[in-house]
Amino acid sequence: MSKKIVIVGGVAAGPKAACRVKRLMQDAEVTIIDQDTLFSYGGCGIPYYVSGDVSDEAELRSTSFHMVRNEDFFENAKGVIVKSGTRALAIDRTAKTVKVESVVSGEKLEIPYDTLMIATGSRPFVLPIPGNDLDGVFTISDLHKAIEIKDRIAKGKVGKAVVIGGGAIGLEMAEAFKDLWGVETAIVEFMPQILPRIVDFPLASMVTKHMRDNEVDIFLGEGAEEILGKDGKVTGLRTGKRTIEADIVIMAAGVRPRSEIAAEAGLQISPMGAIVVNERMQTSDPSIYAAGDCIEVMHLVSGKKFYAPLGSLANKEGRVAGDNMAGIPSTFKGAVGSFIMKAFDICVGATGLSLEVAKAEGFDADVALTAPSDRAHFFPTEAVVCFQMVFDRRTRRVLGLQGFGPMGDGISARIDAAAAYISMGATIDDFGTLEMAYAPPFSAAIDSINASAYVADNLCDGRLRKTTLESFLAWMEDFSTQPDWVALDIRHPKETAPFMEKFGADKWVSIPYNEVRARYEELPKDKTLLILCDAGTRSFEIQSFLESVNCANTLVLSGGFNMVRRIGVDWYPQ
Amino acid sequence: MSKKIVIVGGVAAGPKAACRVKRLMQDAEVTIIDQDTLFSYGGCGIPYYVSGDVSDEAELRSTSFHMVRNEDFFENAKGVIVKSGTRALAIDRTAKTVKVESVVSGEKLEIPYDTLMIATGSRPFVLPIPGNDLDGVFTISDLHKAIEIKDRIAKGKVGKAVVIGGGAIGLEMAEAFKDLWGVETAIVEFMPQILPRIVDFPLASMVTKHMRDNEVDIFLGEGAEEILGKDGKVTGLRTGKRTIEADIVIMAAGVRPRSEIAAEAGLQISPMGAIVVNERMQTSDPSIYAAGDCIEVMHLVSGKKFYAPLGSLANKEGRVAGDNMAGIPSTFKGAVGSFIMKAFDICVGATGLSLEVAKAEGFDADVALTAPSDRAHFFPTEAVVCFQMVFDRRTRRVLGLQGFGPMGDGISARIDAAAAYISMGATIDDFGTLEMAYAPPFSAAIDSINASAYVADNLCDGRLRKTTLESFLAWMEDFSTQPDWVALDIRHPKETAPFMEKFGADKWVSIPYNEVRARYEELPKDKTLLILCDAGTRSFEIQSFLESVNCANTLVLSGGFNMVRRIGVDWYPQ
Repeated sequence: MSKKIVIVGGVAAGPKAACRVKRLMQDAEVTIIDQDTLFSYGGCGIPYYVSGDVSDEAELRSTSFHMVRNEDFFENAKGVIVKSGTRALAIDRTAKTVKVESVVSGEKLEIPYDTLMIATGSRPFVLPIPGNDLDGVFTISDLHKAIEIKDRIAKGKVGKAVVIGGGAIGLEMAEAFKDLWGVETAIVEFMPQILPRIVDFPLASMVTKHMRDNEVDIFLGEGAEEILGKDGKVTGLRTGKRTIEADIVIMAAGVRPRSEIAAEAGLQISPMGAIVVNERMQTSDPSIYAAGDCIEVMHLVSGKKFYAPLGSLANKEGRVAGDNMAGIPSTFKGAVGSFIMKAFDICVGATGLSLEVAKAEGFDADVALTAPSDRAHFFPTEAVVCFQMVFDRRTRRVLGLQGFGPMGDGISARIDAAAAYISMGATIDDFGTLEMAYAPPFSAAIDSINASAYVADNLCDGRLRKTTLESFLAWMEDFSTQPDWVALDIRHPKETAPFMEKFGADKWVSIPYNEVRARYEELPKDKTLLILCDAGTRSFEIQSFLESVNCANTLVLSGGFNMVRRIGVDWYPQ
Repeated sequence: MSKKIVIVGGVAAGPKAACRVKRLMQDAEVTIIDQDTLFSYGGCGIPYYVSGDVSDEAELRSTSFHMVRNEDFFENAKGVIVKSGTRALAIDRTAKTVKVESVVSGEKLEIPYDTLMIATGSRPFVLPIPGNDLDGVFTISDLHKAIEIKDRIAKGKVGKAVVIGGGAIGLEMAEAFKDLWGVETAIVEFMPQILPRIVDFPLASMVTKHMRDNEVDIFLGEGAEEILGKDGKVTGLRTGKRTIEADIVIMAAGVRPRSEIAAEAGLQISPMGAIVVNERMQTSDPSIYAAGDCIEVMHLVSGKKFYAPLGSLANKEGRVAGDNMAGIPSTFKGAVGSFIMKAFDICVGATGLSLEVAKAEGFDADVALTAPSDRAHFFPTEAVVCFQMVFDRRTRRVLGLQGFGPMGDGISARIDAAAAYISMGATIDDFGTLEMAYAPPFSAAIDSINASAYVADNLCDGRLRKTTLESFLAWMEDFSTQPDWVALDIRHPKETAPFMEKFGADKWVSIPYNEVRARYEELPKDKTLLILCDAGTRSFEIQSFLESVNCANTLVLSGGFNMVRRIGVDWYPQ
């Protein structure tokens, strides 16, 4: 008799595992159960469907060769049965059956399995605040919601939108509202920065500035306290600090694993509520597999389990589950948390641990901030990019990399290379000699990722002494925070003049980079010199020289003014 | 007394090492000797200077902050002395001196050193054919040559150009001539494909087609036999097969290490003429370092030394040499041969070993050819890309990756990630779960690099049985090469109809992908079915299904018609 494989969940991990296991065991009976009638869609595409970049929701449910992945497609092309509109209610592990009910008729049924897979995904977190059930409050949980949101915008019903949550989905939705539809849009984020835990303050600040430059309001450190309404419809959002008018409120406050059916069946569940699986995607019951947003995976840097609800991981996990259900002992060893996002004309990416997370995990973590050219500086399409490399001082291991630059695939290239390397345990020294493919239209002879490693190397060995961006910004707001600091600005005199005029010669000294060797005796002796340039590279050279002439009381601003300008400050001379 | 460090060679490795060692030891006396008066330039930028993308040669000699790297710059900013126009004649290892002469005055001098570094680079190979000394014959060896070439074009003296050599520099120069200046341009390559040893036949063919579509003539398998001239000036090139008119001939037939001064000093030299160094860039004399195009490095896949004359490696090697001259035990472990190139509107990249080279090195090498979407297929900027993953069947190690796609950084992203991974010994299974940063504007949920690994996995385990592109093309030229083959074209009937009409129903059977499960009994039983689709993915699914119904005599064309169309064939129905 043919083996019965039942898969609960029809998006990403589920269909991937179903099709893989069917290809490997054509005589198996493979069934997908999904409570929805729309399934096997690219959920990450929802913001682009709402924006209009993707014109029809069916495109999100289609293959690259333009077939819609509906029940017929799965049956005819894949040999996989899909029972849509069918909710899984409970698993009987002894009888090896899943109890299901029809969403429409309420009819109940027991479906027998030899092997079961749980791919129930996640559900959006709904903030427990008044008004969260008003008409016009949405989460980005499925395609129906997306269709309704777009429908409202297209019908002109949305003039003002508020997005709760400054994570990737929140930012993408805000861009979708603002960029193509011109909706007045605000983001409210409870934490003091957007993209918390994904990137650190410097890169988060750059994205914030760019989105504000594109007229998206961003309110940081403000919790959503109440969704306001009239006649059952949303009219606004109240935070601790203000009230924002809105016709629509998007809750993008994260997702939680949907693991109830597993928990009720007695499968092992993690403290945060995710299904526990081994490297073969097996749950604590060897006949039951799980993959996708309902599980936790190993973090390949921290060595601890973490929750990584991403479509890209779900597909990879699904394939491994499919292999193992067919007897092929593939493994999914874990993830490094790679991330990339478009925001208007820029992109931001990250992999591994942020500084904040790395410190919380107990690493002796530090960062190299850099702001180099993304390709040969003489090539016409050259642009400045910003990187933050997180490393462990004790082991010199690179723990993470964050990048910010113009929209395109240049940041991806560095993040992807770093992800591969970091997952293998690469050190600062490995990154220093990492062989990025070089030609002037693509990269610099010393690629930006190598340059990051050089700075990390100099920091780690104590050759480069820096101030943090945060300390510098605090000092610029109030010189009394560091009374003995004096800026040594080594840029061109034309660049430094407005600073000297604004801040005074006692706080701002200007000697051009190529004159410091001849003129260093002009420098104040009893001060801490804060060496400033555009990218930080020249500053380090000057620090190294000054040390040799017994002027060692210096600090470098890593990333320099390239970084500061992208963060946006109100003291910058016009 | 301060340590005397002398560096012979003022491009890439030399200046990098000089500046690094000076930063580490400010009290050292660091001197660069270069026979040229133009030095420390980005040689890889020459084609972009000739094309006009870079308007002024000084940009190639400038820093990212727009200072020209001349003698004054090195002295004032870096504290490094440059003796330009000074040729190094001989090294006296016992006395620890370098004998030099002034190129202008002929004056000779002995320069003492404590530590010496040889960074003499490479020289272009000059074909020993008649006419190679005619006016109008150029190699791309230095900036003076580049200036003269551009000057001739700008003055309207170049209507027709011939480039000898279809390597990266030859192709870049051909584009420079054709694209911006409209010069009638031909490339003559002795080997049967362009970019020999760098990429294999499929990707080389795609680049060839694209360059021909952009009206660059490419003649393959033709040796340059004589450069023709009149009154001492070039008039054309004669190959074994034709004569091509030309006002200018560029010899881009590779470079050779410039190692005579090292050899004459008794330092160890490799069989191919490169200086032998250890991981710290030390020659066989511990007081003498070498780096850049004059040395050989370890290939991290083959485990053998190879010659990799690239500016990007030279800079990395230079930094390691600088570290070690200052007592920091950095190492340069080797390279994987990463490569990337723009050609008009496309780019092509590679890392690791090509199939041809891998086989020659004794690996049980095979390839996965794929032609997937470069990002979410529903995202507007999506494009088809082509990858060839080279792997070792015995160990499942990935040996190399080649990619072809639209101009941009998307191919770089995959090549760079692969370079990092391959240098760490990653296997097919590692590549299958490699975590490329995912969002629809950047990548697919299953990234193209993961998809390549999936194909390699299926090939390695014998689940996917394929024909090579070469065998398929031979069969399409002449069906008698495989008399029992019949095409099973599973694309949409609209796509297959012209093929069925052209090639006949006995050679071309059409059943759409999603109908094969219902209609497989229509298939001929006694033939080898060659399953064809656009990318190869659906073909594998059908192969796997057909095997389950005892129709196992099938082959898949990896990469499918996406690949074939990019190679260009004359039998393709209009």
